[in-house]
Amino acid sequence: MSIQQTLEKILRQIKDGMHPSDLVDLVDDLNDAQKKELFSLISNEEAALIIQEMEEFDQVSLIRLLTKHRASSILKEMAIDDATDLLGELHPEEAKDLLALIEEEAEELRDLLRYPEDTAGGIMTTDFIALPEDLVAEDAITRLRELAPEAEIIYYVYVVDAQTKLSGVISLRDLIAAGDGTFLREIMFRNVISVPAHMDQEEVARVVARYDLLAVPVVDEEQRLLGIITVDDILDVIEEEATEDIYRLAGTGEVRGNILDASVFGIARKRVPWLLISLVGGLLSGFVIGVFEETLKSILILAIFIPVIMDMGGNVGTQSSTVFVRSLATGEIENDDVWRYFFREVKVGISMGVFNGIIIALVASLWQGIPMLGVVVGLAMFITISFAALIGTLVPMIFNHYGIDPAISAGPFVTTIKDVTGLLIYFYTASIFMKYLI
Amino acid sequence: MSIQQTLEKILRQIKDGMHPSDLVDLVDDLNDAQKKELFSLISNEEAALIIQEMEEFDQVSLIRLLTKHRASSILKEMAIDDATDLLGELHPEEAKDLLALIEEEAEELRDLLRYPEDTAGGIMTTDFIALPEDLVAEDAITRLRELAPEAEIIYYVYVVDAQTKLSGVISLRDLIAAGDGTFLREIMFRNVISVPAHMDQEEVARVVARYDLLAVPVVDEEQRLLGIITVDDILDVIEEEATEDIYRLAGTGEVRGNILDASVFGIARKRVPWLLISLVGGLLSGFVIGVFEETLKSILILAIFIPVIMDMGGNVGTQSSTVFVRSLATGEIENDDVWRYFFREVKVGISMGVFNGIIIALVASLWQGIPMLGVVVGLAMFITISFAALIGTLVPMIFNHYGIDPAISAGPFVTTIKDVTGLLIYFYTASIFMKYLI
Repeated sequence: MSIQQTLEKILRQIKDGMHPSDLVDLVDDLNDAQKKELFSLISNEEAALIIQEMEEFDQVSLIRLLTKHRASSILKEMAIDDATDLLGELHPEEAKDLLALIEEEAEELRDLLRYPEDTAGGIMTTDFIALPEDLVAEDAITRLRELAPEAEIIYYVYVVDAQTKLSGVISLRDLIAAGDGTFLREIMFRNVISVPAHMDQEEVARVVARYDLLAVPVVDEEQRLLGIITVDDILDVIEEEATEDIYRLAGTGEVRGNILDASVFGIARKRVPWLLISLVGGLLSGFVIGVFEETLKSILILAIFIPVIMDMGGNVGTQSSTVFVRSLATGEIENDDVWRYFFREVKVGISMGVFNGIIIALVASLWQGIPMLGVVVGLAMFITISFAALIGTLVPMIFNHYGIDPAISAGPFVTTIKDVTGLLIYFYTASIFMKYLI
Repeated sequence: MSIQQTLEKILRQIKDGMHPSDLVDLVDDLNDAQKKELFSLISNEEAALIIQEMEEFDQVSLIRLLTKHRASSILKEMAIDDATDLLGELHPEEAKDLLALIEEEAEELRDLLRYPEDTAGGIMTTDFIALPEDLVAEDAITRLRELAPEAEIIYYVYVVDAQTKLSGVISLRDLIAAGDGTFLREIMFRNVISVPAHMDQEEVARVVARYDLLAVPVVDEEQRLLGIITVDDILDVIEEEATEDIYRLAGTGEVRGNILDASVFGIARKRVPWLLISLVGGLLSGFVIGVFEETLKSILILAIFIPVIMDMGGNVGTQSSTVFVRSLATGEIENDDVWRYFFREVKVGISMGVFNGIIIALVASLWQGIPMLGVVVGLAMFITISFAALIGTLVPMIFNHYGIDPAISAGPFVTTIKDVTGLLIYFYTASIFMKYLI
């Protein structure tokens, strides 16, 4: 297709009401010049709908293709939470310039920009409907009809008292079902679940999932309603946080934007820092082997069981770290439970150590025909596995205690500690039994 | 607190309208006898609300505490999708007995039970509202008022034609904003996004997240509306699927129910199968070392770099597998992109291999004072890392191609292949350069 045909196709799809998420796929295939041309042909509203659905990384590069004046006009049309996120991605200078061009909503945007981006305040929108307690149902519905196009969600109607403090919530279905003259105060649900503006987004996601909410109100210290967070943003948070944990657990960084668009160098740069930790860890383990060089020289056969000791310790350590980190993230384990969890995990490690120790002892004795070698390898395996389960839980516990994401610890850090200790245990056991082995 | 006090406290909280999710936390702390007593004191409706919020594992043990008659009465009060899930967890015989006691809804439940539990059909509810195209807005609102307490969600009103085929959707806010005499046909949105009943739940979650839906309709081959899936269930799906992937990537199984309630043996049993693969893998790697015993005997110093070769290969392999599996799961990579992705990943591996190969070459030369050792270790590191990136992507690609979850491949399988190949590469390189090393 020629450029002209591609553009015409996209413009036709916009007219036909194609969902913005699908339009984004088409826009993604254009080069910068084509994107520029496309955006010169569509309205600010259409542009805003498309940009909102883009990945933040792509939003930024697109906005930079446009004039400041045009960019600010599009920002004005975007949902306020999406506009805030986009401004937060730009350089502070760029954001300032754009904000200067946006008149009316600039103040609101500036307020929202003040919240860290991964907190309740950072992901909330201020486009919500709050009605006073002393309104009657009929008038409330009329107000909703007037306000509906503006507000992000009207499935929940939040009710505030005279001090704009959040006092209740009514679902749209209850409002419709209520008699016309009923005061909101009488039908509202008072135990409304809200979150403070500084709450971490992961925590907010847990609240929304736990109570099956479509939206959750965000309040300040005085319980004044500041904004709302809708469930579609929570879906993104859950996915983002899971991806972040998965990457950290695996010992790798995440590139921004779509992985398919990233450069070889860009990807490598995100991964190499983790590899350098592995490198140091591997060398430390090698150092341990070096220390026991004499032992190894006398009983060369010991080298054969180095990989199985390392692999088993590695798998057990990873299992323990992963289960702990994930259970903590999903709220299955609370901070109060960690010690109880830790001791049970050590028992799991010991029982797996006994089982696998016996297996490897039998394999080693029969394979090499040296029963005492079986004892050494089996014993070392038992200790290594038990210890790996302990380290695999303890290290993330310590990270968590000091407010560092425990997922970071689970990759190269745990690997290094359990490799070094595993090899120490193995060669130390071997050197004790050495006289029976030669 | 005495048993009596605990029970009284829970009963008081139920009366005060505590959210069922919070009640579950209190119920979880009771023993079986206490649970039995509590449930003899509350209504079927209250029991249903509490059970719905429990983990499936806990639901089953609770239902088994009750008489069949009572259990069936509670099931009748539960949301139909939750009741179906619970029945699906029971032994087929138990489910059959309970279904025999449920009269009215039994047919609906039996229909729902026919869908595999992780498909759109398996997670949908049949409590939804569908209105005919030729209804006017005013009558539609009246119908909603009557039906609201029954239906799971009324934020979207689905519109069907004379053959009960899904023809459009209207959001409640648009319905309220519409003039009283307008036909639904005129205001409904026709490009309604729906999913087929057999679609995998992970795919459904992607659709809901992509289009920011609060619910998605499920249809059969003739586009007839079968049910709906609400976003709160999608939140659970996303979390479940992420956890499943994380556990598989780490090479561990997941226990059912809360991890804190699981027994040491129960946990160990889920993890040991993965360890046995590691065990075999580790022994195969050891076999490689055994093959090169003579080389190792002549140049014992080679043993020192075994761990760093294994650790680096391991980290790179895990990085590649994890990024691939996760990008596939979140839809960042489509099936069409895999080869393009694969070749770029190999380039990433090569560039990281060059970088880390040079570093380790320098370290090895300086540490041991043998420049040729640096060449051997550096070269082996370069090949191992490049190969680990290749294997780490290719193995999950193959699993994915044959319809097996690629996350399974990423743990012990990739580890084994890259350990064996890494050590082969290392010792083979060393044996080539041996004459310069001794």
